[in-house]
Amino acid sequence: MDFAYSPKVQQLQARLTAFMEQHVYPAEPAYYAEVEANRAAGNAWIPTRVIEDLKVKAREAGLWNLFLPESELGAGLTNLEYAPLCEIMGRVIWSAEVFNCSAPDTGNMEVLARYGTPAQQEQWLKPLLDGRIRSCFAMTEPAVASSDATNIESSIVRDGDDYVINGRKWWSSGGGDPRCQVFIFMGKTSPDNPDRHKQQSMIIVPRDTPGVTFVRQLPVFGFDDAPHGHSEIVFENVRVPASNLLLGEGRGFEIAQGRLGPGRIHHCMRLIGLAERALEHMCRRSVSRVAFGKPLAQQGVTLERIAEARILIDQARFLVLNAAHLMDTVGNKVAAKEIAMIKVAAPNMACQVIDWAIQVHGGGGMADPFLAPAYAGARSLRLADGPDEVHRAQIGKMELKRYRAAQ
Amino acid sequence: MDFAYSPKVQQLQARLTAFMEQHVYPAEPAYYAEVEANRAAGNAWIPTRVIEDLKVKAREAGLWNLFLPESELGAGLTNLEYAPLCEIMGRVIWSAEVFNCSAPDTGNMEVLARYGTPAQQEQWLKPLLDGRIRSCFAMTEPAVASSDATNIESSIVRDGDDYVINGRKWWSSGGGDPRCQVFIFMGKTSPDNPDRHKQQSMIIVPRDTPGVTFVRQLPVFGFDDAPHGHSEIVFENVRVPASNLLLGEGRGFEIAQGRLGPGRIHHCMRLIGLAERALEHMCRRSVSRVAFGKPLAQQGVTLERIAEARILIDQARFLVLNAAHLMDTVGNKVAAKEIAMIKVAAPNMACQVIDWAIQVHGGGGMADPFLAPAYAGARSLRLADGPDEVHRAQIGKMELKRYRAAQ
Amino acid sequence: MDFAYSPKVQQLQARLTAFMEQHVYPAEPAYYAEVEANRAAGNAWIPTRVIEDLKVKAREAGLWNLFLPESELGAGLTNLEYAPLCEIMGRVIWSAEVFNCSAPDTGNMEVLARYGTPAQQEQWLKPLLDGRIRSCFAMTEPAVASSDATNIESSIVRDGDDYVINGRKWWSSGGGDPRCQVFIFMGKTSPDNPDRHKQQSMIIVPRDTPGVTFVRQLPVFGFDDAPHGHSEIVFENVRVPASNLLLGEGRGFEIAQGRLGPGRIHHCMRLIGLAERALEHMCRRSVSRVAFGKPLAQQGVTLERIAEARILIDQARFLVLNAAHLMDTVGNKVAAKEIAMIKVAAPNMACQVIDWAIQVHGGGGMADPFLAPAYAGARSLRLADGPDEVHRAQIGKMELKRYRAAQ
Amino acid sequence: MDFAYSPKVQQLQARLTAFMEQHVYPAEPAYYAEVEANRAAGNAWIPTRVIEDLKVKAREAGLWNLFLPESELGAGLTNLEYAPLCEIMGRVIWSAEVFNCSAPDTGNMEVLARYGTPAQQEQWLKPLLDGRIRSCFAMTEPAVASSDATNIESSIVRDGDDYVINGRKWWSSGGGDPRCQVFIFMGKTSPDNPDRHKQQSMIIVPRDTPGVTFVRQLPVFGFDDAPHGHSEIVFENVRVPASNLLLGEGRGFEIAQGRLGPGRIHHCMRLIGLAERALEHMCRRSVSRVAFGKPLAQQGVTLERIAEARILIDQARFLVLNAAHLMDTVGNKVAAKEIAMIKVAAPNMACQVIDWAIQVHGGGGMADPFLAPAYAGARSLRLADGPDEVHRAQIGKMELKRYRAAQ
Repeated sequence: MDFAYSPKVQQLQARLTAFMEQHVYPAEPAYYAEVEANRAAGNAWIPTRVIEDLKVKAREAGLWNLFLPESELGAGLTNLEYAPLCEIMGRVIWSAEVFNCSAPDTGNMEVLARYGTPAQQEQWLKPLLDGRIRSCFAMTEPAVASSDATNIESSIVRDGDDYVINGRKWWSSGGGDPRCQVFIFMGKTSPDNPDRHKQQSMIIVPRDTPGVTFVRQLPVFGFDDAPHGHSEIVFENVRVPASNLLLGEGRGFEIAQGRLGPGRIHHCMRLIGLAERALEHMCRRSVSRVAFGKPLAQQGVTLERIAEARILIDQARFLVLNAAHLMDTVGNKVAAKEIAMIKVAAPNMACQVIDWAIQVHGGGGMADPFLAPAYAGARSLRLADGPDEVHRAQIGKMELKRYRAAQ
Repeated sequence: MDFAYSPKVQQLQARLTAFMEQHVYPAEPAYYAEVEANRAAGNAWIPTRVIEDLKVKAREAGLWNLFLPESELGAGLTNLEYAPLCEIMGRVIWSAEVFNCSAPDTGNMEVLARYGTPAQQEQWLKPLLDGRIRSCFAMTEPAVASSDATNIESSIVRDGDDYVINGRKWWSSGGGDPRCQVFIFMGKTSPDNPDRHKQQSMIIVPRDTPGVTFVRQLPVFGFDDAPHGHSEIVFENVRVPASNLLLGEGRGFEIAQGRLGPGRIHHCMRLIGLAERALEHMCRRSVSRVAFGKPLAQQGVTLERIAEARILIDQARFLVLNAAHLMDTVGNKVAAKEIAMIKVAAPNMACQVIDWAIQVHGGGGMADPFLAPAYAGARSLRLADGPDEVHRAQIGKMELKRYRAAQ
Repeated sequence: MDFAYSPKVQQLQARLTAFMEQHVYPAEPAYYAEVEANRAAGNAWIPTRVIEDLKVKAREAGLWNLFLPESELGAGLTNLEYAPLCEIMGRVIWSAEVFNCSAPDTGNMEVLARYGTPAQQEQWLKPLLDGRIRSCFAMTEPAVASSDATNIESSIVRDGDDYVINGRKWWSSGGGDPRCQVFIFMGKTSPDNPDRHKQQSMIIVPRDTPGVTFVRQLPVFGFDDAPHGHSEIVFENVRVPASNLLLGEGRGFEIAQGRLGPGRIHHCMRLIGLAERALEHMCRRSVSRVAFGKPLAQQGVTLERIAEARILIDQARFLVLNAAHLMDTVGNKVAAKEIAMIKVAAPNMACQVIDWAIQVHGGGGMADPFLAPAYAGARSLRLADGPDEVHRAQIGKMELKRYRAAQ
Repeated sequence: MDFAYSPKVQQLQARLTAFMEQHVYPAEPAYYAEVEANRAAGNAWIPTRVIEDLKVKAREAGLWNLFLPESELGAGLTNLEYAPLCEIMGRVIWSAEVFNCSAPDTGNMEVLARYGTPAQQEQWLKPLLDGRIRSCFAMTEPAVASSDATNIESSIVRDGDDYVINGRKWWSSGGGDPRCQVFIFMGKTSPDNPDRHKQQSMIIVPRDTPGVTFVRQLPVFGFDDAPHGHSEIVFENVRVPASNLLLGEGRGFEIAQGRLGPGRIHHCMRLIGLAERALEHMCRRSVSRVAFGKPLAQQGVTLERIAEARILIDQARFLVLNAAHLMDTVGNKVAAKEIAMIKVAAPNMACQVIDWAIQVHGGGGMADPFLAPAYAGARSLRLADGPDEVHRAQIGKMELKRYRAAQ
């Protein structure tokens, strides 16, 4: 057991931090200004020049595609190695894209890298790895509990050489971005299969396929998260070639299992970074803001909350790192409980830390360009991939397994 | 001691509830659609036809100006009588305006009714009571802790027959509305007065006075709360006649004390209603949504949270009613501790209840047209008029007073 | 609606408080010393002289049997009138007995007063009202969830002119006291009755009846609560005359419903007083204890917690008073939800407030003669009559009733 | 970074677990029975035969003195290696003594091993390492905040070849045990030294020195923790040879710093084990107890709490392991923040988990021979060595250091 990061990781942390300090943090005002300008000009849904420029720089700096474990296409890092880097990216809500490490593309690239045919990889994976296009993952449905991928109800029906797709999806993040060229769509090919883990399949749907209708961009507590966004999309008799199917009929759940683990852990890693930065804001404000004659740091609950925030963050980080370690060593399936645990722990931790950071900023906290979207973003991850409560029930059941067996 | 509402109140509750059911709830979709249409048309900051129409109906129904205790101008209700009515209005975030009972106008009307000269009342109070114009309260400043009105730093300097006003204000709610014609502005006329409760004054500033500059509308966790909004405003050498001063130089804190109490209690009353409705949404969703084969009501923490929500709401309501009772019987000043207590208790309660309601709605919760703005709105009231933490410190000090005396 | 206590209640509060200050608080050290001396002498389970002496004084002062609503046998107070008096008694864990108002005798006296025959009342109620004997309520069983009286499994079987009783009971409070002369025992006379609310009966069992075996006194987190105590008792073929049955076969649940409400509310009222006194200890310590150069009141979380404690206590008090009001006006059965709500809210509130008070006392807190037993006592009431969780589930179900109906 | 225990540790874990299962868990009823029998016989304060017998077995099994890092006298384990073993011992409150690893002896042995002269080691360390005698650490004082060792006020005054000691100490754990032969006493030799970290010294005081008076054994929420206990002791003109001083005058704080770190982390390691076992009890009860027709595991909040308990425990364990790692690699002084963090996190975590475990056991929980003392024990560690609040304030200050520097 060794709690120190490896030299390799430490060196990457240093490089990534340097890049953030040199290029990303200074670009934050410009980024928000560009988005607001686009919005004012009537189109919030176009990519920003700020990020496109930073992407070039990041790629030049060798900080590109740092995810993708067990693959030569990325940086060749394990989950455990990637975690502290992902954390650093999480400090700026939009910065993962700079390094081509942003959701949902990372998960989609993993799926294509693992399960895609050479042709699929050539057509979709390559431009994704290049950061030329973006992608969307169409899994969550309004009508069912999305925390369990077996619940989905959309249909994928074989018809000759094609599949015909029907269903309503929402919270399809990234759907608002014009660069988004492709969906990975999950639906049922065999709804009557007695094995409910074999009913689902995943299939590639090019964005401009007829029958795909964007209904709306969903707000997250008032934020539309433009230009990325979260789409509600209807698929009506959408026809794609049978060769677009991934891995094979009935293997959608298997792919989802492989995909959701990394997706969740990336979110959690980023939340650690987000909370760290919120704590930094909290600390800076505490020592600089004077009210009633003394800095806030010398008053009331400030120190107590800073201490609790430090404890909460460090605890959550170790839990996330441990889950990453297990994913690397025993696999995503065996690590299911640990992945569910961080899915619960990290967003709640971040919500709490950011909440405190907001309070110490007073009224300005709720309009703060970092804290306010961070708050909404962290809160949304208590619901993404299913609410906390569902994950806790699953953790509880896994914990009880050995006791039931013993009865 | 009697916990039943008086027959008079019960009758008003029934009439108000009937009005809500007949006119307001059915108009909610139209209201949001109108705001969105205005926004899409490039002007979110215009009054809605929906509310203007409902105002006419409410006035006809005799449900108008229900606030204003100790005055013949309103409905003649005490705070305790008004509380359960205000609660009902709180169930729809924008509905208080329908009954001409919305912040900040109610507080401003109270100030004008109590302290205004006949001329001031004729010019400003009358159209406010008629619902023809709206108003703004310019107290909170970015640079100081706003929970204590003595902290404010803006200046009001006598110059001949005028006062010259300088300062930066924010969270001036309602400033975005073109109907807003007048500010009640708080600043210091005697910054050197050794009695720090005599340094401040309040003064009437017509909106179109030269030197008044709207800087921006502040977002509340992503919501701009259009068409009402919260403004940041700079006052630069704003000159108004000396007759615009309210009550007299050095009496601003005295007015604020009288104004803030009712303002806070109205917010708290509405939060009770907001939380009640969130609980209703939570209950309806619990019995209707089936996941994993059973209604949510039969799963996990659902019942526990409904129970806790019921306890939290009822407790907070009694606390608010008691504060109202004390304001009516011993006055706003003596009731300072109780007012501070509800200022802490009610928003935290509402945040918790709404948070649970969101969780039970899954991903849809964060885009829900009722729950999402309710969440942001309740959260903002943990900061409005100063963060919780400041109020708790004040409550603690008041609680300790008799022990110190005993030492 | 009126939040002021009636003049009658205020006058009783003043008398009771004066009695506490003159007689009870000063006797606390002597009480604990006497119990410890008895324990050291090998018999902790004998009544204290301190309480016996105080009982004489309280009776002389007319502060006797203040409970017993709707009866001429007591002071003729409603639940709402009794509540603030019960609260005052709750400030000293053992003081209710001084006023012949202590559990479980109050509940048992209510049962005998309402449902006892004249002969039963002559034999048992009269000496109880006189404070000459004490009693025990044998309901809770180790094997079943005691929050629901229908769950109990002990048997009461008719045999000629007798009933024969079998069962194991625990948490039978007061069983350790040699003055305890009588049990009110709950068991099933008709276990096969299809109406599960008609299976139970209650019956009077004199303590010295053959077959009654005291197994042990149960500790409450290390406290044995001598000389009162909580007994585990086995009833084995215990034979009593059929005339000992209360009200009639199959009416045990009905009696329990009437009994448990007042029992619970009395506990909750006392918890308010207990928490108030803990807050007083907290405040006194905060202003007097200097650490790191300043009184605790000026450091860290102290003020915050005092404020929260004040809010929590006042909220819980209003909830309890409202439940008392409902019990008086619509009856214990209709008030079931409100009674369950305070059963959850009051102990949790008291646990929290006492916990904070302990922390502010440092290490001494866990050995403090008031705080430590108060902590254990309040904690035990999260379990007495069923754990919180069961009550919350019931509250949740009651809350959902109207929504289900609406479906 | 590697989250797996080393093979050496895994092997020791296996051996220790086997010993616990074979010898310790089966002896729990006998242990409690023996203590109760001793108590009933009028002397709770004698060592138990159960533990003495187990000590022989543990020593034979090579499971002896597993603590003592950086020393050949113990097992030669680092803190990080010892942590998971200490956790296993923590599963039975009294079992650390079986392996000669119990507080306060471990801390005292570390002090003697590091700072004792050969003569001191021969006289006191050797019999302690052999488990023949026990010891007491006399630091905490009723009058001052004990979380900071510089606050203590007892005096150690040089008088010829002796030191004369005066002071009142409490929470001197183990003082009740007749095998306790020696105190390590902390007091001030140079109260006027301008460097407040050089005012204190530590000195060895044999138990039977004249002037040492045992005042009482302090209860922990009703538990006296016999036969170990926590003593209040007065030292009045206690005279010991000057050679009993440890390390040198003015070096008491330095020793305390070295001693408190390991002491705290051992407590925290044991709390992890205690919480793990409470969770096991909770799980077993959840699957076996049927109420209202279903196992508790299928009802209400049970799964949610099991999940949260698992998360809380795992998080706290990693935090403790990380602190151990830092103590091993950068030293106790640099790890001060991390040690303070676990001092806050671990007891609060354990209190919460045990609280839930109690609730799921219903009334029996508060009399449960494992859960009830575990609850009191975990709660006491929120106060031992200073209340949480003081540690949080210190953590907060350490966290803020770099921000102040930046100002």
